[in-house]
Amino acid sequence: MAREDLESIVEEVMQELLHSNHTSSEVPIGVSARHCHLDKASLETLFGQGYELSEKAPLSQPGQFAANETVTIAGPKGSIAKVRILGPLRSSPQVEVSQTDAFKLGVKPPIRQSGQTKNSSPFTIIGPKGSLYLEEGLILAQAHIHMHPDDADRFQVRDGEVVEVAVNNQGRAVRFSKTVIRVSDKYQLEMHIDTDEANAGAIQTGQKGILTKGAPTYV
Amino acid sequence: MAREDLESIVEEVMQELLHSNHTSSEVPIGVSARHCHLDKASLETLFGQGYELSEKAPLSQPGQFAANETVTIAGPKGSIAKVRILGPLRSSPQVEVSQTDAFKLGVKPPIRQSGQTKNSSPFTIIGPKGSLYLEEGLILAQAHIHMHPDDADRFQVRDGEVVEVAVNNQGRAVRFSKTVIRVSDKYQLEMHIDTDEANAGAIQTGQKGILTKGAPTYV
Repeated sequence: MAREDLESIVEEVMQELLHSNHTSSEVPIGVSARHCHLDKASLETLFGQGYELSEKAPLSQPGQFAANETVTIAGPKGSIAKVRILGPLRSSPQVEVSQTDAFKLGVKPPIRQSGQTKNSSPFTIIGPKGSLYLEEGLILAQAHIHMHPDDADRFQVRDGEVVEVAVNNQGRAVRFSKTVIRVSDKYQLEMHIDTDEANAGAIQTGQKGILTKGAPTYV
Repeated sequence: MAREDLESIVEEVMQELLHSNHTSSEVPIGVSARHCHLDKASLETLFGQGYELSEKAPLSQPGQFAANETVTIAGPKGSIAKVRILGPLRSSPQVEVSQTDAFKLGVKPPIRQSGQTKNSSPFTIIGPKGSLYLEEGLILAQAHIHMHPDDADRFQVRDGEVVEVAVNNQGRAVRFSKTVIRVSDKYQLEMHIDTDEANAGAIQTGQKGILTKGAPTYV
């Protein structure tokens, strides 16, 4: 690279640094254990006609909750019991597991954002009143940050943007370079990673990561 | 930060960029499954007097091998069977597990470099001829790169230095920002991460990471 090109890039970066508004870029992190979302039809197949989920505890995202109910998830190589159902009900069933879980089940789920289950892995859900084989709906969740439009303004990011989040712990420090921003006025600021990602960085729920804008560069 | 300070930092960075020798910074990655190192005394307790390990397959590091023999590892909350023994024998026993395994065993091992087992977690090893309770020796391995002195020259790093390694995959890209360099003329170039770290980045053995010198900055 010619020195002049480098100088012009550096000048741009300096301007950005000098004129940035120095707002905090800290984002609280929540570690998502494997979990299950159901629709009305699948809930009734698994738990019986007219069954309704009961709330065990509220989640950080307003209106969402962990239910008292759990199911067993099974694949060609194994099963995992006591997978927590999250409410409220959705328009279609979806299960999010870690890669560690996927090896145990014997499936190769794609890494997706929640709700994007097209052509994801097939699996079986077993409840107390029935079981269900689903052609798709099993995914690994891509790391993402829920945020309110006010947070998006503050961080100067938009829905769907990919950012990097760094977490610095004793012995392990990681940067998640493909973290997707998800903006809604129903959301509260929180980054969600799965248990594999948490373990890789020795991260616990409640810890904070540092958000950096822009796709990472691999020098 | 004053503009002059920033300018002097930027000038330093530019000099480094302009004068870097542009050698490849790619490092092959090996994913380490949980494994066990034994000394002569522990091998004889677990497998019988005069027992010797037999080689199942050579490892990437010259002289090291995966043995045919496996043991069971146990902690206060659970056990894990078929933990592979790696040879040759060492001066003291050591077991490396993932954080996922540690939860299952019910222990909280520190993140350490291999060989640094002082005040690490206690555990039980069970073999076909006996079992052994060890006061320490169970660790989570810190990500590290084995390299020959020639590689160290090429990368301009030294033994013990902490570098960052980036891996960019579909859906997941991570940077391991506390990767320790380990230099020996007995080593062959390879980065070792554990299964949690591999899963967090959708990484498989044989894939390459990009090494970047210097401790990471958290802007």
